[in-house]
Amino acid sequence: MEVRLEPAVVRGFRFAGVAAGLRRESGRKDLGIIVADAPVAAAGVFTTSRVKAAPVIIAQEHLGSGHLQAVAANSGSANCFTGKAGLRLVRDSCAALASTVGCEIQLVVPCSTGVIGHLYDSEKYRAGIADAAAVLRGEGLTDFASAIMTTDTHPKVASTTVGTGRTRITIAGCAKGAGMIEPRMATMLAFIVTDAAARPAQLRTMLKNVLPRSFNAITIDGDMSTNDTLLLMASGAVGNQALGGRHLQNLEKGIGEVAGVLARELVRDGEGASKLVTVEVRGARSEADAGKIARSIANSPLVKTAFFGCDPNFGRIAMAAGKAGVDFDPERLDVSLAGIKIASRGALNVEVLAEAGARMKEREFGLTLDLKMGKASARLITCDLSYDYVKINAEYTT
Amino acid sequence: MEVRLEPAVVRGFRFAGVAAGLRRESGRKDLGIIVADAPVAAAGVFTTSRVKAAPVIIAQEHLGSGHLQAVAANSGSANCFTGKAGLRLVRDSCAALASTVGCEIQLVVPCSTGVIGHLYDSEKYRAGIADAAAVLRGEGLTDFASAIMTTDTHPKVASTTVGTGRTRITIAGCAKGAGMIEPRMATMLAFIVTDAAARPAQLRTMLKNVLPRSFNAITIDGDMSTNDTLLLMASGAVGNQALGGRHLQNLEKGIGEVAGVLARELVRDGEGASKLVTVEVRGARSEADAGKIARSIANSPLVKTAFFGCDPNFGRIAMAAGKAGVDFDPERLDVSLAGIKIASRGALNVEVLAEAGARMKEREFGLTLDLKMGKASARLITCDLSYDYVKINAEYTT
Repeated sequence: MEVRLEPAVVRGFRFAGVAAGLRRESGRKDLGIIVADAPVAAAGVFTTSRVKAAPVIIAQEHLGSGHLQAVAANSGSANCFTGKAGLRLVRDSCAALASTVGCEIQLVVPCSTGVIGHLYDSEKYRAGIADAAAVLRGEGLTDFASAIMTTDTHPKVASTTVGTGRTRITIAGCAKGAGMIEPRMATMLAFIVTDAAARPAQLRTMLKNVLPRSFNAITIDGDMSTNDTLLLMASGAVGNQALGGRHLQNLEKGIGEVAGVLARELVRDGEGASKLVTVEVRGARSEADAGKIARSIANSPLVKTAFFGCDPNFGRIAMAAGKAGVDFDPERLDVSLAGIKIASRGALNVEVLAEAGARMKEREFGLTLDLKMGKASARLITCDLSYDYVKINAEYTT
Repeated sequence: MEVRLEPAVVRGFRFAGVAAGLRRESGRKDLGIIVADAPVAAAGVFTTSRVKAAPVIIAQEHLGSGHLQAVAANSGSANCFTGKAGLRLVRDSCAALASTVGCEIQLVVPCSTGVIGHLYDSEKYRAGIADAAAVLRGEGLTDFASAIMTTDTHPKVASTTVGTGRTRITIAGCAKGAGMIEPRMATMLAFIVTDAAARPAQLRTMLKNVLPRSFNAITIDGDMSTNDTLLLMASGAVGNQALGGRHLQNLEKGIGEVAGVLARELVRDGEGASKLVTVEVRGARSEADAGKIARSIANSPLVKTAFFGCDPNFGRIAMAAGKAGVDFDPERLDVSLAGIKIASRGALNVEVLAEAGARMKEREFGLTLDLKMGKASARLITCDLSYDYVKINAEYTT
């Protein structure tokens, strides 16, 4: 199954992205909408933060039915920590899109990203919704993806097709987020649509299955957003009977691949990131143990600055593994970095370090730890910590 | 009780620090020793990492008796992840100091800091021990403190005196560590000596009592070292009867103050740190809840880069509080930053943000969250995340 970093037409859905003036930078797209021809099955996962943005609260409420007809997503304001005024603003915003589309307000799912603690301008938002509705088209996914960018350097879209008996279904998606990324059972803003038919409960199961190896398997800075939202929608435009058996499995596989590619693209475009590193921990007693060590390494500032400096710093990797709270025997540990085995049974292979350092100059490489304590493993994609991460975040202000 | 950032003579102890050639930078002090006139009561706390350096393993073994007569601490090599050869090297090193001092090897406590995965040169170490023994003196604490520095920019020493009835006792200490700092029940290398008399069990209790408000109340980068060691030693040189009652409380208070000042000095000299920020969480249901939120904020890269950028970024503070996994009501939250109340009952006070940003230009300020959920609180000292943190850690290599 080939996943392309390109948009695709997905029957039953139209997309738009416009500049509504919600951001300080004038002329930049900041409001996107997805509109389905009719109510579609949908499922979502959201941030687990105790501080949830107003749109997240309303989105969870509206998604309770398992159906939606329209999605509105803006950048420029997260509408978080905005109290009752924030909730009122979200309901107003949903009402504007509902009346434009001609659906019930409960069928509109809202998302926001941007500065926390500020409200966007309601008038501009409503005008933007009208503008967006006027330019809706099947080919508009990249416009939508552009409207939800914050510190992202480019829109991230991906698509694939899957054969299911007589028909070929299409899956397409987009995502945004370059900082404040450590999803844990949620993600930044991401949207996946398909023209296959599926019931809401099936979509929920599929999301649960694909998350651990896609959006929950990445980290940029260990900071979880208040607005994380991932939506999956199925129009059933290719045939209104829900898929089953092998075809359902294929659909899930396709969704998983699109989600995986989008997640990887988020890290590749991580704030200030110059390297994408896949951290794999093998030979653990449990997946949870492997995951804890992988996360401890992937979020360690000392490990991430060593990645940036192309420094095969075994010591920091060992330190980060050691602090994860997982029992293992340091004297059994094998470590491979950028394809070079830098430590065997707990002992550093000093003679290969220069070679490993040279290979770390590549934009992508792997770091694998084998604990030799069991058979479980976990994998996490992370990036380096560079001057530019500090620059971007010391200069991006309230 | 005034704690001075100065060394002091503590009867019963002598100190030295010499350049033994263990570091790559020639001529830099890298081996320090503390020698007591006779075996003294002692207690220690160590890293809780699953990857413990060889000297930590031996130090814990030797401290089992509750007594020591000499401490050897080197920089340049952490002697961690060095297997059986590392353990042999530590025993050799302890033997060298024991024979010089004329005490049993079990009365020598070893500490190391520096590069992980490398062994220091045994010959140079033994020669350094002899050199150090030749220059031991009561006034040598700063020499010792200089020998254990790694990325520290200056030695950190502190001292105070405490009245206990007829006699006045002295407490002095030193510490090192500027990165890989998030102690949790341990610390980087730190040594506190007193001429008061105390039993080992009393010293252990005092350490346990003073840790939460000193070395365990700081974080620089959330990375816990493999070599963290804190030693407390009491010579009893001012009177050989163990203190009790009010005098013992005074001694503990003095030790706590010296530990607190040293811990604060570690953060002030944190890698690349330009600001020291005291994060206080009040009104929590439990100390554990308050501590989780304070730690989540104090370790958030996005909050720390905002400190660096003098950006009163309420959103990132709220995000970091939200992801801590503690239940609280965002709509009750008050937040003060650098003495300015930037949020009241969950609403941002936009009009004072510029003033808060201006005050963040100071080298030290506070960040206080009041959850209004209960009466518990916690306090943590942290620093900002700057270009220089990245520079120091991308260029400090294996």
